[in-house]
Parts: sequence; structure tokens; C-alpha cells
Amino acid sequence: MSFLTFGVGPSKLSAETAQDLRNAADLQIAEISHRSQAFAEISRRALGGLRTFLRIPDSYHILYTSSASEAMELTIQSTVELASFHFAQGKWSQYFADIAKHFRRRVLIDTVEWGQKNDFRNTFVPTEADLITICHSETSTGVACDLADIRAVRHRFPSTFLAVDGTSIMGAVAVDIALADIWLFSVQKCFGLPAGLGVMIVHERVFERAADLIARGVHNPGVFNLPAMFTMVQKDCNTVATPNVLGIYLLAQQMERWNAQCTMESRERETREKAELLGRAIEKSSSFRFLVRAPEDRSPTVCCVRSDPQTITSLHALCRAQGIELGKGYGKLKEETVRIANFPAITCGDIQRLLQVLEHVRSRTPAA
Amino acid sequence: MSFLTFGVGPSKLSAETAQDLRNAADLQIAEISHRSQAFAEISRRALGGLRTFLRIPDSYHILYTSSASEAMELTIQSTVELASFHFAQGKWSQYFADIAKHFRRRVLIDTVEWGQKNDFRNTFVPTEADLITICHSETSTGVACDLADIRAVRHRFPSTFLAVDGTSIMGAVAVDIALADIWLFSVQKCFGLPAGLGVMIVHERVFERAADLIARGVHNPGVFNLPAMFTMVQKDCNTVATPNVLGIYLLAQQMERWNAQCTMESRERETREKAELLGRAIEKSSSFRFLVRAPEDRSPTVCCVRSDPQTITSLHALCRAQGIELGKGYGKLKEETVRIANFPAITCGDIQRLLQVLEHVRSRTPAA
Repeated sequence: MSFLTFGVGPSKLSAETAQDLRNAADLQIAEISHRSQAFAEISRRALGGLRTFLRIPDSYHILYTSSASEAMELTIQSTVELASFHFAQGKWSQYFADIAKHFRRRVLIDTVEWGQKNDFRNTFVPTEADLITICHSETSTGVACDLADIRAVRHRFPSTFLAVDGTSIMGAVAVDIALADIWLFSVQKCFGLPAGLGVMIVHERVFERAADLIARGVHNPGVFNLPAMFTMVQKDCNTVATPNVLGIYLLAQQMERWNAQCTMESRERETREKAELLGRAIEKSSSFRFLVRAPEDRSPTVCCVRSDPQTITSLHALCRAQGIELGKGYGKLKEETVRIANFPAITCGDIQRLLQVLEHVRSRTPAA
Repeated sequence: MSFLTFGVGPSKLSAETAQDLRNAADLQIAEISHRSQAFAEISRRALGGLRTFLRIPDSYHILYTSSASEAMELTIQSTVELASFHFAQGKWSQYFADIAKHFRRRVLIDTVEWGQKNDFRNTFVPTEADLITICHSETSTGVACDLADIRAVRHRFPSTFLAVDGTSIMGAVAVDIALADIWLFSVQKCFGLPAGLGVMIVHERVFERAADLIARGVHNPGVFNLPAMFTMVQKDCNTVATPNVLGIYLLAQQMERWNAQCTMESRERETREKAELLGRAIEKSSSFRFLVRAPEDRSPTVCCVRSDPQTITSLHALCRAQGIELGKGYGKLKEETVRIANFPAITCGDIQRLLQVLEHVRSRTPAA
């Protein structure tokens, strides 16, 4: 029996991507050499398609990683000499700081309660920070900032490196790449593809910084370092080690389709319409409330809904009986929240199907 | 039109694996959460299947990486404090040393000419080396050592960490895991699966060493470090970051099939029979000769054949006209060699098809 997942990653694949996967078997995509012209052509389509859809300026380059986590590691190692500053509003924005700690950098951090948003306009950032990190949409809590927040940080600290984790939002809402030096994401969220592939969009000044840190022995990298990765992608859109060829093919197909069907702006409109459809049902439900109180701080792609643990348990059970999977609450919120992905592969019809189940949930405790 | 590849990685997928890929789309494998019980079950099948087929002792643990290169990086960082020693007989055995240099370890190396095999029994290895690396089958040249070579090194240096790169041979010939502390490979060679997944088999004493190097600040790892990966795999067969779920599913399917159909010994017999079939044709051909002169040093899985550049060019063209792809020669051998994979997915019939083409190749210069 097929199932419909609202999981926040890995997440729903569109019917077209599922068909691409079957076609990939017929076309023997996984059997071609990653050093062949055939692969270069596929990779060029993937990179070119991303560049078009996300309107990536020429001064930025796109690199493949195996995950967003790997991209975060590369970001810290390639930009930070002594200290980094992190806006933390949940697990994944905190994660960037954790990685910096692993690499023994001095970690400066602004932490807010889960469900709240950082104050990007006023928070003090010490000048010693080489890097500032922002999580665009915090997958653990469903908090998101907007481009104006990112712009405010860039304007306040124009010469500090700025990295944005766009993992659960890029591809669903419009971005302005010029606002940060590094953008990173993995394709199993909004891009609706199988897990095992990450993407980094990197301004050329970052490569210079990385090369300088390597030359001065601050960063002792292995073979996966930004300058080496840059050299390879410049040469035939290639990679340092054998990449996930199949994943890159599926990305190429997806980008070709998206660029033919929509733009970032029309995609964002659809995303916000679906989010409103879901949001109205949550607002009027007596069983659920949003974890994120302020509507303007809610992620359009990850809806985190709170209730008492028994209601959450019965919601999961009711959904499962209908062939629907929800994203479990994250970490300390596991028992009292569910997360509902509103990624591009999720249709209005999918949300309608979920709303029918939500209507049958009766909270066992009065709603707050 | 379908093609038959003898490429040495990515390489041929069996018809069964191609069907698994189509089924994965129908079963929505790429849509399940990597933190779900459903994923844990798939991963348990993959790890258990590998443990059975490769007869991995309980004191070893299996970890997923995204590539063999990543596994090499983890090996250097997790075992070497000051110096490592590398047997180098081609690009990939040299690569291990290159990575150690990247991490600014002192690199000790025994290098032989491409096409020759290191003298594993007599080469002097300084006592300061924390790690010795061996490449079981050198994919760039088609040189291979055997288990007796690996055993000799282990016996000579029982307390030095020993890592074996089994990338283009494990899964095709029998191994004795107890002979080394770390074995690593990627699945797009003998395991006949799409690229984007690597495997490390690690003795528990390596985790202790890695933890000690981290505690003492010798190794400043990110989130992908052996102790963290060990913790995750112990808990529900899981991974640090979102893994290549689809790749792990295909591995689980492959291992289940292999364990039902064969053993390491029967697999090795088949491999050697196919290698002989191919080898006899090369021996009697006036157009080609083996790069590796000593028959006992030839890899059973990567056959590297030499001729003049024009003959190599016409061989590629003749093959391509028949829908056959060969592995190009590597690096400095590109113009004058081809490499022919003899991995488990390659059948006797495939080799017969190739031999028919080989018969039609006429060398333009007299054979050496």
C-alpha cells in the first residue's frame, strides 16, 4: 500500500521524480563513469538548472556535498580562524555552533527559547567573529526568518562571512543569493529528491579565504576542501570523489522541470497558499495550536503543531490508519508536537487529505 | 539503446539491482525517515548481510560513509598521531599517502613503478608509523596483492594499525577481516550498486584510538568522527547525518541475494574463472599485453591491458559501436591502456561478447 508522508526529510517525492528513478534504471544512469562526458552533461544540467531557478550570480559557485552537515563542516573550516557567531533558535541552528566547537573554534552564540525567533536586527555580534550563521527555517521548531532579517545582518556586518542554512526552505520560497556568502541545503527536503546529496552555493571570496587558511595551517583539510572542490567543479562540473551520480541525475531532471513550470516567485505563492490552508485549519482547531506563536515567525514549509501527548499519539495513529505519515516532534518536543512538511511535492490535495484526519482528532485536554 | 559497461567504477549493475531500483520507487523507499523503525530494519539487513557474507568478527563494526575517500580521511585522522606508512603501487595506494600529507602527518612511503607490486614481506617500515596502508587491488594499474601479503605485514607489525583499501576487490574474492584493523570500500565496484555510498569495517580498538586522539586534541573532528559514528550505528544501525537511504536499501537487497546464492569462496571461484577466460584471450592476442607482467600480481577484478595509443583508440571505437564501454586507462597510462572490470555483475556471457570485439582489433605496431 502506498503512503503519503508529511515527514520533514526525507520527504515526499513527486510522481515525476519517482518516474525519473524508474527511468534512471532503464537509462543505466548509475552505470556511467563520473569522469565521462555523459556525466559532465548531466551535472551541467543540474548546476545550470539550479543557477537559473535560484538566480545565482556569476560570482557564486555551486558544489555538491553528501549532506548539509558536511556543508556546515566545510563552512566552519573554510572561513573561521578563531571565532564564529551563531544565531540559535533550535536544534539545527545550534548544530552549526556544535560543529564549530568540534573544530575547537571559539563559539559565540545567541540562543532563544525553542519556538522563538532570534532578534537579527539588534543582537550584539562581537567583531572578533569571522563567520555569522543563520538558519533560514529551523526544522526542529518551525521558526523561520525572512530575507529582511538576513539582509539586516548583512548590512550590520558587511565584512563578516555570512552563511545561511537553507535546508528546509530553499526551493520553496524566493531567496536573494547576494545576501550571504554561503548558502547550503540538502535535496531531500524542498527539492523532493532522495537523501544523500547536499548543495553549497559559495561566493568566490570564500575560496580565497579557505586557501589562505590552508596555506597558513589554520585548516588542515583532507581531500574534501573548498579550493579542491572548486577546481573540480570548474573542470567539467566534476567532484573530488565519486559522487552520488544518480542523485545528481534526479536533481538535473527536477531543475529542468521546475524551470519549465515555475519561478521562485510563483513557487513561493503556491507554498504560502498551501501554508495558509493548513494554518487556518490549525487556528480553528480546539485540539492544536502552533508552537510558534507569532504568525510572521512561522516557517512556510515546516509547520510545528503542539498538543497534549495523548492527542499527539492519537493523531499519529489516526493518520497512520489513513496511510499518512507525519514528522515526529524533534528532541525535547517529541511527545507534544508534530511537524508537517509543506514542501513543493506536497499538493493542495495532500493537505486536504490531512485536514480531514485533523478534523476527527479530539483533544483529551482543553486547548490552551 | 542499452549499453554494457566494463568500467571500473561506477560499473555494471546486475538486472536484479536495476529492478530493485525500480521497486524502490514503487515502495517509496526514498520517502521514509532515516530515524524510523522502517529505516532501522533496512539498515540492519544491509549490515547483517555484509557481516554474514564477509564473515566479519564481532569485534569489528560496520560504518557507512559517502565514499571510500571519506573512509580514508577518517582512517588517517582516527589512527595517526605523527606518522603513517603507505605501500604505493599506483594512484589509489598513493592517494592514502596524499590524504595523510593533507592532514600534515609525516608520510613514509614505499613506491614502486606502476604495474609492479610492493614487496610486502621485506620492505622496511619505520617503527614510528602509527598506521600502515595497503591497497588490495590497485584500480589504476590492475596490480593486486593477496591475503598472504596482508598477513605478512600484519605478522611483521602486529601492533601498528593496518588499513586495507579493498575498493575494487572486496565482494569478489575471499577476505580475512581479522588480518587488518580497518577495511574500506565503496559499493559502486564489486558490489554492483550506484555510487554514493562507502563502507568501513573497523576493529573496536580503532574507536578507542580515535577517542584518545580527539581527547588529546590531535584530531579535531567535525560531526563525522569514528566515535560519533560508532554511537549512532550501535543505536538502531543509524548514521550521524541523513544517509543515502536508497543506497542502503539497494545494499540490503544485494546482500540478501548474495547470501542466498553464494559464499565468498564460490564467488571467488567464479571471479577467477572469468578472469582466466579474459586473460587467456589477452595472452594469445598479438595486439595487447598485460600491464602487470607477473601473472600472480594481477588483480582478478581489474584487468589492465596495454597497447599502442592507436590500437587503444580503435578498441574503444569498436567497442562503442557494439554498445560496450571499457574503463579508460588511468592518468599517465590513459593513452596506452584500457581497464576491464571483472566484477560480480559481469557475466561469462559479457566477457564472451567483449572477446569477440577484441578478436577484431589489429594492432598497428608489432606487439612487444
